[in-house]
Amino acid sequence: MLVRLRHGLTSAELDPLLTLCHDLGFGTRFLDDGRRLLELSGEGDQAHWARLEGHPDVVEVIAPGEPYELYARGSDSPDTVVEVGDVSIGGESVGVAAGPCSVEDYERLLRLARGVQSCGVSILRGGAYKPRTSPYSFQGLGVVGLEMLAAVRAETGISIVTEVLDPRDVERVAEVADWIQVGTRSATNFPLLTEVGRMNKPVLLKRGFGATVEEFLLSAEYVLNAGNAQVVLCERGIRSFDSTTRNLLDVGAVAHLAAATHLPVIVDPSHAAGRADLVRPIARAGLAAGADGLLVEVHDDPATAKSDGEQAISIDELRALIQETRELIALDGRTLSLPNETTSASNESAKEPIQ
Amino acid sequence: MLVRLRHGLTSAELDPLLTLCHDLGFGTRFLDDGRRLLELSGEGDQAHWARLEGHPDVVEVIAPGEPYELYARGSDSPDTVVEVGDVSIGGESVGVAAGPCSVEDYERLLRLARGVQSCGVSILRGGAYKPRTSPYSFQGLGVVGLEMLAAVRAETGISIVTEVLDPRDVERVAEVADWIQVGTRSATNFPLLTEVGRMNKPVLLKRGFGATVEEFLLSAEYVLNAGNAQVVLCERGIRSFDSTTRNLLDVGAVAHLAAATHLPVIVDPSHAAGRADLVRPIARAGLAAGADGLLVEVHDDPATAKSDGEQAISIDELRALIQETRELIALDGRTLSLPNETTSASNESAKEPIQ
Amino acid sequence: MLVRLRHGLTSAELDPLLTLCHDLGFGTRFLDDGRRLLELSGEGDQAHWARLEGHPDVVEVIAPGEPYELYARGSDSPDTVVEVGDVSIGGESVGVAAGPCSVEDYERLLRLARGVQSCGVSILRGGAYKPRTSPYSFQGLGVVGLEMLAAVRAETGISIVTEVLDPRDVERVAEVADWIQVGTRSATNFPLLTEVGRMNKPVLLKRGFGATVEEFLLSAEYVLNAGNAQVVLCERGIRSFDSTTRNLLDVGAVAHLAAATHLPVIVDPSHAAGRADLVRPIARAGLAAGADGLLVEVHDDPATAKSDGEQAISIDELRALIQETRELIALDGRTLSLPNETTSASNESAKEPIQ
Amino acid sequence: MLVRLRHGLTSAELDPLLTLCHDLGFGTRFLDDGRRLLELSGEGDQAHWARLEGHPDVVEVIAPGEPYELYARGSDSPDTVVEVGDVSIGGESVGVAAGPCSVEDYERLLRLARGVQSCGVSILRGGAYKPRTSPYSFQGLGVVGLEMLAAVRAETGISIVTEVLDPRDVERVAEVADWIQVGTRSATNFPLLTEVGRMNKPVLLKRGFGATVEEFLLSAEYVLNAGNAQVVLCERGIRSFDSTTRNLLDVGAVAHLAAATHLPVIVDPSHAAGRADLVRPIARAGLAAGADGLLVEVHDDPATAKSDGEQAISIDELRALIQETRELIALDGRTLSLPNETTSASNESAKEPIQ
Repeated sequence: MLVRLRHGLTSAELDPLLTLCHDLGFGTRFLDDGRRLLELSGEGDQAHWARLEGHPDVVEVIAPGEPYELYARGSDSPDTVVEVGDVSIGGESVGVAAGPCSVEDYERLLRLARGVQSCGVSILRGGAYKPRTSPYSFQGLGVVGLEMLAAVRAETGISIVTEVLDPRDVERVAEVADWIQVGTRSATNFPLLTEVGRMNKPVLLKRGFGATVEEFLLSAEYVLNAGNAQVVLCERGIRSFDSTTRNLLDVGAVAHLAAATHLPVIVDPSHAAGRADLVRPIARAGLAAGADGLLVEVHDDPATAKSDGEQAISIDELRALIQETRELIALDGRTLSLPNETTSASNESAKEPIQ
Repeated sequence: MLVRLRHGLTSAELDPLLTLCHDLGFGTRFLDDGRRLLELSGEGDQAHWARLEGHPDVVEVIAPGEPYELYARGSDSPDTVVEVGDVSIGGESVGVAAGPCSVEDYERLLRLARGVQSCGVSILRGGAYKPRTSPYSFQGLGVVGLEMLAAVRAETGISIVTEVLDPRDVERVAEVADWIQVGTRSATNFPLLTEVGRMNKPVLLKRGFGATVEEFLLSAEYVLNAGNAQVVLCERGIRSFDSTTRNLLDVGAVAHLAAATHLPVIVDPSHAAGRADLVRPIARAGLAAGADGLLVEVHDDPATAKSDGEQAISIDELRALIQETRELIALDGRTLSLPNETTSASNESAKEPIQ
Repeated sequence: MLVRLRHGLTSAELDPLLTLCHDLGFGTRFLDDGRRLLELSGEGDQAHWARLEGHPDVVEVIAPGEPYELYARGSDSPDTVVEVGDVSIGGESVGVAAGPCSVEDYERLLRLARGVQSCGVSILRGGAYKPRTSPYSFQGLGVVGLEMLAAVRAETGISIVTEVLDPRDVERVAEVADWIQVGTRSATNFPLLTEVGRMNKPVLLKRGFGATVEEFLLSAEYVLNAGNAQVVLCERGIRSFDSTTRNLLDVGAVAHLAAATHLPVIVDPSHAAGRADLVRPIARAGLAAGADGLLVEVHDDPATAKSDGEQAISIDELRALIQETRELIALDGRTLSLPNETTSASNESAKEPIQ
Repeated sequence: MLVRLRHGLTSAELDPLLTLCHDLGFGTRFLDDGRRLLELSGEGDQAHWARLEGHPDVVEVIAPGEPYELYARGSDSPDTVVEVGDVSIGGESVGVAAGPCSVEDYERLLRLARGVQSCGVSILRGGAYKPRTSPYSFQGLGVVGLEMLAAVRAETGISIVTEVLDPRDVERVAEVADWIQVGTRSATNFPLLTEVGRMNKPVLLKRGFGATVEEFLLSAEYVLNAGNAQVVLCERGIRSFDSTTRNLLDVGAVAHLAAATHLPVIVDPSHAAGRADLVRPIARAGLAAGADGLLVEVHDDPATAKSDGEQAISIDELRALIQETRELIALDGRTLSLPNETTSASNESAKEPIQ
């Protein structure tokens, strides 16, 4: 039998609880370093289960054979809806984030932010810390990039999703980001996942390009178990023997995840395709398989981008994709969460002279 | 410079053409065993090109640097639309075939044929020859299975798509099939592809589970170059390191193929997923990526199927999928080619008493 | 319970045997199309098993839970040693075949045959039928190539291993070949495997580049079950996400196969590497993992080869590889089967004047 | 043109050098965050190159077209030999490390250390920090494990290789470890690689299970460029579609790396195979392909190991493997670096009574 405890209990709080378990006749063993999941063994007095279930430090008592992972969709668990700024992702609500691969200069970033806002998108993606295969490739602007993101956020009101690579940078990134991204190259960076799990900010967790779906879910479990329940999964394509596309978007995984977890799942068609001309159909495929949102690279001058220019679409292409997304998800009874658009639409009408 | 000749020229017809080329100052070399693609080398008299272009045995003269593969989408080549019975596949028209994995007994096959017809589907899939990994697995009913398919076709008017494994069986299968399937395990069976290319019947060519997109297209080229232009490609998932789904449907390939070839491309969500519960979202993903149709396994009693029962959906699930497909492709301005449905609809109305 | 019957029983021979089974109280069902593996079901009289075991048409009675595949290594099955010409492959004996990728012209082929013989190698590889991804690539010389191989064989006494692609060509190839190759692209060509299984010639079966080890063994089982026990497996590399080498030689599979099957396993370092400079280390790796032999591409002028020139080594490099192989396998107590070398060595010594 | 600077220059040292470049007419741009690789652009005065080459802060001037990566094997670069304790790895010298997957209890660790020493092995592997797919799997003993390793080292004189996961733990691990391991799940943890690159301790860098060979080398480049030249690469198998073995040891990569880099390369047959019975042949394959050493898991009671028990071999099996390794590498003129063995051998002979 497993008992899940409240997150962040001190030793002073844990001790009486463990004593209680022993008094009830159970042996005890923590399954995790965070000491949240407690295994009870031995005879025990079944009649005393109720005492544990009612204990204020106990979140739940898990019967043998039941899935105990926090990501798992129980028989009656509702979809988790993650709120990023004023955008809702999950359930009946589809969210979109767009922006450049990396933050390069302030004017361009501001222009792109306003461009994506003009499409109704109110989350800007953009990397200040870039994980690059080679130490000689552009590694992002770092702190300077974070400051640019913060300034654009202040100027436009747009929300920010940006990546963190190093557990020592998590707090700093969390100050600027509305949504903290853990990238595909950090999918098995367990110290980073744990640190991000300590923040009170939504997390965008990308699947490792060499990770199975189960490994993907267990990476999320590190964040969840550290106390952060606001996790959005992102399928961005995995490696295959064929180089026709940069990666292979796993729509079967998207469909499987919808059944296996209550967490929202979005897709990144830009990294999956690696080609701007395939972003639209791959985005549509992900949404049709059930994805709760999109993460898209846009650029106003792809040819001069310092990274991944060939896979960025233009603002006009983003606008068309948003419109297509709206129609596609309407077939399922889902709606786009584009509060910015609604606002500007009402502003528009507010500006209409009344006569 | 390359010259494509008419298909099936005799030596008596070829000789004067080659003589003409030599007279014009070209060296000649055939690129293919079928002697359709002739490479002209050496100086040659450019002014005489017109004579070759106008020659009755010459299909086209291909300038250096131009793609010469028959599958390639030229700058102005229209989509190929393949007609299977009264179903159109390609262009603005989406086609669906459904049926059991293998033909098992006549009554069941007939019941399934009527079931899929009741959903508006007028192509029945079903294997008489089954390529099985083990020689001790059920290999299909062979000739007996073909006879059952022919009988169901005669009884119901449904069209038949069925697989051929052996070049020696191609004629026999072509007598029964309206659409000849070459399966994933035969994707590099070049003698079979060539033999199928000699038939005057549409071909359904599945991608090899270990084949790149380019290899897939070149497998199709074997059929096209042998003289059969009615090829439908089928993406059915490839192998990956993750066994969450049986195969990994490559929606990026579907999207890429729409640009790379004029041939129609359909998807097989049943083999991609290997699980009935994922057929619907994976089918939708394929269609949203641009697929021109679906190949779906259905069964009335999956638990007793001799092969692949766990991935077959029910007739009712097929009906729902058809309805969803209709709505999804309408977003692109495409329509389902379901003549059977139209007919039964008109029959329905015809039955209405007129007063 | 399973009963394996003699290969090639006629209906007239089968009928009384089936009647006997029924009389003993068993239901019967053949598991394979070749009607060799008979499943007995129902009560049956256990005391009568002995009658079946002693029956002249019964090869073996297989107890429930025992592996019934012919490839499987039973508790006491000795290594199969396959004899190709005067070369032994398997057990303590290591065999080598070498030659060009494809047969191109007679003089070159003869020169290469004498070259490989000068290294002690007495099996010449060379393709008359070449499976090529594109229909416009050189497909081999076909019958003309077979005739050249036969002529070289007659001239030099070297044994021939060459590939067959089409079940209709099997008899013709078997007339020339001492060892019939089924290539990686035919690994799931079950009609071809069955046809080859009807020949009384050793078979060289390559692993499909997308095949699991279990599928590889079951491809072999098609040949074995059709009556041909002389099968040599060949690991030649599989597909991976990394293109550093053309394919990825699976040394773990070589090691696993040594335990899983009594059939000999050789490696093809040329196709695995795709690069002449890596043939030596990859060949050594395969042998060290337990491989029973090598299949190597050599060429006297790689730059002008019509196919795969970049992966062929020179005759001198082959000679060095043979010497290294001899030393490497001696560590395991194994020896090279190079009768040609021994003969020429004795011839040499015979020429020595006796005084 | 590229100029590589001394590692660890301060701004005060850099400024005059950059001024000099500008005075010579070059534009300057650093390619890396560590500011070691300086790109010079524009006309510049070629005659002044000599001044840069002779500058005390310049390591080398790299001509256009020359490989500039520190891992690259130049035309005359000797093999790097890395010294771990008294063991040499690289060049003509082959090194072996062995030990349990994870550190579990002191007595067992000490027993295993003495066991591996009894085979002549003087590097003990053992994880104090374990990267585990699930947060509920045993994560290692952490600091307590490090203390156990230090105590065993003090007691036996054996050298220690152990993994670090978190950049914040690097200094602490480096205090105990003679060889710092960066595991397969950290292969793209660039902050960790950089931090490890700042230590003056040898590094054992494992290939990511989803990494190409080029990515592997560039991970090493992060360490090298941070100032640490003592890097040993470790091929431990990559993911494939076949689950016969846990991973697929890429012997082609081992062979390729021998040509592409001067860094030593070892193999980990335990993680590649995932099965104790295949450790021996896979280890041999790696060595035959040119590997400079082995990293092997041993256990005295595999059935009770907390992680990876099924792939650990016994001390007796290790002893046999060492003996086989010695014979195998002798074929290349290489020798095992087993100083411990030599010592005990001389001790042995010293004990012999002299008469």
